[in-house]
Amino acid sequence: MNHGSIRLFVESDLGEGAEAPATSLQAHYLGAVMRRSVGDPIILFNGRDGEWLAHIVELRRDRATLRASTLLRPQTVERELALIFAPLKRDATDLVVQKATELGATAIHPVLTAHSNTQRVNLDRFRSIAIEAAEQCERVDLPTMHTPVPLQQFLDGWPVGKPVAACLERSGAAPIQAVAAGLIVGPEGGFTVTELDVMRRHSFLIPVSLGPRILRAETAAIAGLALLQSY
Amino acid sequence: MNHGSIRLFVESDLGEGAEAPATSLQAHYLGAVMRRSVGDPIILFNGRDGEWLAHIVELRRDRATLRASTLLRPQTVERELALIFAPLKRDATDLVVQKATELGATAIHPVLTAHSNTQRVNLDRFRSIAIEAAEQCERVDLPTMHTPVPLQQFLDGWPVGKPVAACLERSGAAPIQAVAAGLIVGPEGGFTVTELDVMRRHSFLIPVSLGPRILRAETAAIAGLALLQSY
Repeated sequence: MNHGSIRLFVESDLGEGAEAPATSLQAHYLGAVMRRSVGDPIILFNGRDGEWLAHIVELRRDRATLRASTLLRPQTVERELALIFAPLKRDATDLVVQKATELGATAIHPVLTAHSNTQRVNLDRFRSIAIEAAEQCERVDLPTMHTPVPLQQFLDGWPVGKPVAACLERSGAAPIQAVAAGLIVGPEGGFTVTELDVMRRHSFLIPVSLGPRILRAETAAIAGLALLQSY
Repeated sequence: MNHGSIRLFVESDLGEGAEAPATSLQAHYLGAVMRRSVGDPIILFNGRDGEWLAHIVELRRDRATLRASTLLRPQTVERELALIFAPLKRDATDLVVQKATELGATAIHPVLTAHSNTQRVNLDRFRSIAIEAAEQCERVDLPTMHTPVPLQQFLDGWPVGKPVAACLERSGAAPIQAVAAGLIVGPEGGFTVTELDVMRRHSFLIPVSLGPRILRAETAAIAGLALLQSY
């Protein structure tokens, strides 16, 4: 529901007078799709230097240059909210990455479990989806993308003092009722008994329920993040 | 994350010894996809008579008969939670109907607004999506599907005493913090000034915010329902 100006993510540094090259895809979007011209305003962010008003100073079919002029919003540090999830089928995974970005996830950690749909994830694809979602939802940062690791390795590496809400259906767990620094969601097939045992050994994991229904994994990720970001 | 038995929605009445015909699609699913045979257990619900243990008594390529034997869960009345939304592009609309069913919406009301992506909805398609989602998430009921009406007509017909949370971005509204009987979400292009004026004249509408980011319409619907069903 964005009625504002065009908002683009760029890789280069932003500051007063800084020139940022657009990607060829962005140049195509600006010219052919959105019919913008040299001189038109654009909003830029790079995840480091805040949000800047910029103008198009060069626009060709496959390249464009944007010059930043005014800081619109300083860079902010979002409250930590990591999403830890077992990779799903491609469409469901794409949906999770897009919605997690909209809902303020600051990090995305794929973890490998016995029932994961796949052991491979494409982090470049994750990043493209997150960039597009961040452009759309007016975030000034991007979630950090982490390479997939086995569940146990992830748990062993997580700082003990940071609570993580674990979506466990049919466990009699209580609803999410407090701030957590992360949300962990299992694969479609659920966690195995062994995985549940491993998880129980980590005191930072708080079992939570998302209601009486059995949610699909991607729904649990989206609903859980919606709840956690509301605190 | 459903590890249980096969669970099917049927149209016919359920009770001890009641025989329910499966659709040809369900028969194909039982035999060809899930490799079930006569005598195998199946769980049935019809939205009226609770959830029943049943067994396959006949199974052919394109038809099957299931006989109910034991009531597993009585029919329950869910707390009222209506989703009122402007129809979006087809994929986004399908996603909203599926996730709304998983998240416990009891009614789905498409409303027509100036910026709606389409003025037409296919309620049979809505119902198929909701049935599949209800089978999966272990609901014993289905959301009721309503024919699209203009926004103002919907508002004029809603009972005054039932609060409805209205997702209004950039309005300085407070987060959802109380029970509501409904959630209203605008189209991708947002509500017009006229529509906002009409909405403000209805005291049952509570403006709410879903956080600092600008959510896509379908994300607002899913996140808003996740929050409302958690109370």
